[in-house]
Amino acid sequence: MTDRSTAAAIPSGRRTRLTPERERELFEAVVDLVREHGYEALTMDAVAARTRSSKATLYRQWESKPKLVATALRHLARFSPSCIDTGSLAEDLRQITREAAKHAVEDNALLSGLAHAVTKDPELQQALHDLYIRPELETLDAIMRRAVERGELDADNPATEFVVHLLVGALGTRRLVENKDPDAEYLERYLRAIVFPALGVS
Amino acid sequence: MTDRSTAAAIPSGRRTRLTPERERELFEAVVDLVREHGYEALTMDAVAARTRSSKATLYRQWESKPKLVATALRHLARFSPSCIDTGSLAEDLRQITREAAKHAVEDNALLSGLAHAVTKDPELQQALHDLYIRPELETLDAIMRRAVERGELDADNPATEFVVHLLVGALGTRRLVENKDPDAEYLERYLRAIVFPALGVS
Repeated sequence: MTDRSTAAAIPSGRRTRLTPERERELFEAVVDLVREHGYEALTMDAVAARTRSSKATLYRQWESKPKLVATALRHLARFSPSCIDTGSLAEDLRQITREAAKHAVEDNALLSGLAHAVTKDPELQQALHDLYIRPELETLDAIMRRAVERGELDADNPATEFVVHLLVGALGTRRLVENKDPDAEYLERYLRAIVFPALGVS
Repeated sequence: MTDRSTAAAIPSGRRTRLTPERERELFEAVVDLVREHGYEALTMDAVAARTRSSKATLYRQWESKPKLVATALRHLARFSPSCIDTGSLAEDLRQITREAAKHAVEDNALLSGLAHAVTKDPELQQALHDLYIRPELETLDAIMRRAVERGELDADNPATEFVVHLLVGALGTRRLVENKDPDAEYLERYLRAIVFPALGVS
């Protein structure tokens, strides 16, 4: 899937290769359009206009709107939280939450723009899962494994499987419940009131 | 706003009044279409076709797509959980969660279909909040007030403000995290691992 960007300079038959820079610019524009208008209202005409491309080029390179959007999601540069390791479970959870909160507004715009489409298209669903959920799951697994090793967390604490649901929920539900974006102060209250008691840490 | 249904039989000037039955049928069709296609992809043509109405009638009665959808949401018949009172906080929370779980698939379809639109349209946001969040908040407030009176719950437990976020999150995040719908067994595990420890009940 990423051959195209590394081999960008090499022309091949009928395909006009884009430079990696041009491709990244195009993917960012696609994701911005999903944030602004939602997936269903996104048209290839709008992508062509925003990126000053021809629709023929878009269809030749990516075949269809769902494939273009899924590819754009897969190329989106994301914060990798895998380096979080403060020596304390509470502090690790604060860091991963704080990092997620920095992007909450734009992430919620993208998630809401794709919310309905992913129920209809398994490839989009997988791309969104790989973008948001897989890295969080891997990081949380590592954070909690180290906390068990340090004796901070019971290995069989039943709350561990739900920590990712809790963090995704904290970021996603505040708009619906309170019509507010999640901020650092809200997340700290949420961690102390819900996540830390469930995990048995303070 | 509900004058229209009670006064449905009385013709008034240029407005063709619909019977309450016909109006309910039409609102249910609108909500079904939002579930199926998402708000952005919903057209007045599709509503007219599904309900065998003319577009002229739809626009005369409801002016615009956002007004029609907001009105349909406000007329949607909902389970009112206000009668839940088992004498135990844990059991009350089990009941409200179980009731919500019964409608989780169709509710998630509607929420995902409106997720992007409500970020752009305050009237739709308010209608969705009044449909899903306000009744849950009122019921949870009553449940927790009684638990405090019985001495089951500390009046100043900081988790109480987040119980609605936790229930909405439990129902809404499982699809994104695990690609599964929430079911009774998952919700029981979630209540026992997260909600009960945070509230200090078992």
